[in-house]
Amino acid sequence: MSAVGKRIVDSEALRGFSADLLRAGGFVPDHAAQTADLLVWANLRGADSHGVLRIPRYVEMVELGIINPNAEPRLVTDFGAIAVLDADRAPGAVGMVLAADKAVSLATRSGIGWCSAKNVTHAGAVGYYAQKVAQAGMIGIVMTASKPLMIYFGSKAEGVSTNPIAIAAPTARLDRPILLDMSTAAVALGKIMAASDAGKTIPHGWGVDENGADTTDPKAVKAVLPMAGPKGSGLSLMIEILSSVLVTNSIIAPSLNGSTESSFNGLVIAVDPSAFGEKTDFTRDIDELCQAIKGLPPASDTGQVFLPGERGYAELDKRMQGGIPLAAGTVSRLVALATKRAVAIPTSLR
Amino acid sequence: MSAVGKRIVDSEALRGFSADLLRAGGFVPDHAAQTADLLVWANLRGADSHGVLRIPRYVEMVELGIINPNAEPRLVTDFGAIAVLDADRAPGAVGMVLAADKAVSLATRSGIGWCSAKNVTHAGAVGYYAQKVAQAGMIGIVMTASKPLMIYFGSKAEGVSTNPIAIAAPTARLDRPILLDMSTAAVALGKIMAASDAGKTIPHGWGVDENGADTTDPKAVKAVLPMAGPKGSGLSLMIEILSSVLVTNSIIAPSLNGSTESSFNGLVIAVDPSAFGEKTDFTRDIDELCQAIKGLPPASDTGQVFLPGERGYAELDKRMQGGIPLAAGTVSRLVALATKRAVAIPTSLR
Repeated sequence: MSAVGKRIVDSEALRGFSADLLRAGGFVPDHAAQTADLLVWANLRGADSHGVLRIPRYVEMVELGIINPNAEPRLVTDFGAIAVLDADRAPGAVGMVLAADKAVSLATRSGIGWCSAKNVTHAGAVGYYAQKVAQAGMIGIVMTASKPLMIYFGSKAEGVSTNPIAIAAPTARLDRPILLDMSTAAVALGKIMAASDAGKTIPHGWGVDENGADTTDPKAVKAVLPMAGPKGSGLSLMIEILSSVLVTNSIIAPSLNGSTESSFNGLVIAVDPSAFGEKTDFTRDIDELCQAIKGLPPASDTGQVFLPGERGYAELDKRMQGGIPLAAGTVSRLVALATKRAVAIPTSLR
Repeated sequence: MSAVGKRIVDSEALRGFSADLLRAGGFVPDHAAQTADLLVWANLRGADSHGVLRIPRYVEMVELGIINPNAEPRLVTDFGAIAVLDADRAPGAVGMVLAADKAVSLATRSGIGWCSAKNVTHAGAVGYYAQKVAQAGMIGIVMTASKPLMIYFGSKAEGVSTNPIAIAAPTARLDRPILLDMSTAAVALGKIMAASDAGKTIPHGWGVDENGADTTDPKAVKAVLPMAGPKGSGLSLMIEILSSVLVTNSIIAPSLNGSTESSFNGLVIAVDPSAFGEKTDFTRDIDELCQAIKGLPPASDTGQVFLPGERGYAELDKRMQGGIPLAAGTVSRLVALATKRAVAIPTSLR
C-alpha cells in the first residue's frame, strides 16, 4: 500500500491517541481503551474503513445521545447456555466484548454458549469479537444487526441491513485463528466510494440508483445490493431474527414502519472443541485443513490462495513493523478533534 | 410449471411408492419411510433435483456399501448443550432427523442445543431438518459438509464442497416457518445442466472450464464457482470446520490429500425463543417482520417480494392440490427400478 499523501503512525501511539480522544469525547477510561483497541485492530489489518476514522462520529454519537457514555450493561437473562445482555447503549466494543466473555464462560460449562447483546451501539469490525473467542481456544460466531441499508432481493427499496457475520476457529497459533468476516452485501460501500473518487465505473450487481435500477455509475448509487441476490438478503433477514427479534428488540420492522430510532443488536456464540468428546488435537486437524487449502493450485500464475483472514494477518505484520498509514483526511479530522478537545497529538501526526 | 412430457402423481402415492422402492433396495421400513418423506417434501416444494429422482442412486449406494441399511446410529457424546451422533452411515434423513430431535431436546433444557451427526450419508434438502426444528417452535440452523466439489476462491481447483446452510424460524403458522435454504455455490449445478440441455450460454461467475477459467459455455463447465467469491468458499470452509473437524471426521483435508472415501457430516442447532426471558410473543414479532418485508415495493411492476422459503410454499400448495409433475426420465428410471425389484407401480405412473 502506498503511503503517498498519508501519515505513518505507530500502532501503540495511535491506540493511546484514540483512547485520549474518546475520553475527551466523554467515554469513561475503560470504554475508551476498549474502543481504541477495536479501532486500531481494524487499521492494523488494513480495514481502515472500520478504524480510527470513526472516532469523530463516535464522539458525535455521544453528543447526540446515541451512545450512552455512562452505560451500565447488565445481564437480563441467564438460562442454561443462553444469556442476554442489555448493553444500555454502551460503546459497541464494550457490549460486544462483554458478550464474547459471557459466551466463552457459558461454553466452558455447556460446550456451547450464546450471548445476545441488545442495545449495543455501532460494533465496528465484528471479526474482532470472533477472534477474541478463538483466542480462548473456542470457535467464535458473531453477528450484528442494524437498520435497513441494503436492497432486499426482489424489491427496489432498502429492506434489510448489510448485517455482517464473522466466524473464527483457533489454529495451533492462538494469535492467528482462521477468521471469516463478511457482510451480507455484494460489496463494501467503501469500494463504491473509491470508484467514485477515482472516476471509474463499477460492475453490475453492486448497487442501484434512485429508481432501484442496477447501475455502473458509482455516483448514482443510492443503495448497495445483497451478496448473491436472495442469499445475501435472506441471510441478513435471518441475522435480524437471531440478533434482534429473539431478544424482543426488533430493528427492521419498526424502521420500515417509520421509526427513526437508531438501534443495534449483536450476538456472540462460543463453541468449545473440548466438549466434543473424543480426545484429539482439534487445532492439529485445523492446521492440516489449512495446509491442504494453501496447497491448492492458484487461479493465476502470479496469484496466491488465501485462507479466511490471512490477508489481514499479512497487513498486520507489515503495519506492526512499519506503522499504520493514515489517509490525510483522517489525520486532519483527528487532529482537528484533538485541538478542539485539548488532546495531545502524537509527534508523527503533528 | 408445464407438465408437458411429465406425469402427474399424487404426493401420498409417490411417498408410498418411494418407500416401497427403498425397502426393496434394502432400507429397513422406518428408514425407507423417513427417506421417502424427505424426498417427496423436496418435490412438493419444487426442488425436484433433491426429490425422488435420487432413489436409484440411493439404492445403488446401499449396493456399493456407502449407505449402511442396517445402521445403528448412537450418541457418542452428550455434554451440556452439545451432542454428537455417530450415524453409522444410516440413510441421510435418518441420521439428520435424529440430530434434529436431539437438538430440540437439548434446547428445551439449555435454551440452545447443538447436535452434530457424523458419518451421515447424503442428507438431501437440508431445509427439511431446519423446518422440523421450527415446527417444534424453535429456530433451526442446519449445515452439512461433503467432499470438494466447488472451486476455492483464488484457486483453479475444487477445494471445498457446496456445503449448504438452512435457517428456519417459526411464524404464527407453525407449518409455514420462514425458511432460508442455500448452498454456498454461485448456482445450483442443475441450472447449469438445464442451460446445457437448452443450448443456452450461462452468465460469468457460475462455473469454470478444465483450465479453471470462468466460462459461459455450460457444456465446458468442470466445476461450479462459490457464491460471492471468497465469501462462498470461506463460509463453506467454516461449515467443514463446524460439521466435520469438530467431530474428528474431517472430509476436505483427507480428500485433497488423496482419499477417495465417501463421507458426509451434518449439524443441527436448535434455539428456543422461550429461553430468552422477557415474555412476549416471538411469532407475533416475526409476523410483523414478514409483513414489513412483503410490503416493500417490488423491483418491477410485475414482480413480487418473497420471504425466504415462500416460493416453495406456493409450489407446495399447488402440488398438494394438483399433484407432483415428474419428468419423463425420472418416471422411467423409477419404473425400471420397480420392475427389477418387483415393486407395485402406482396407476398414475404406469
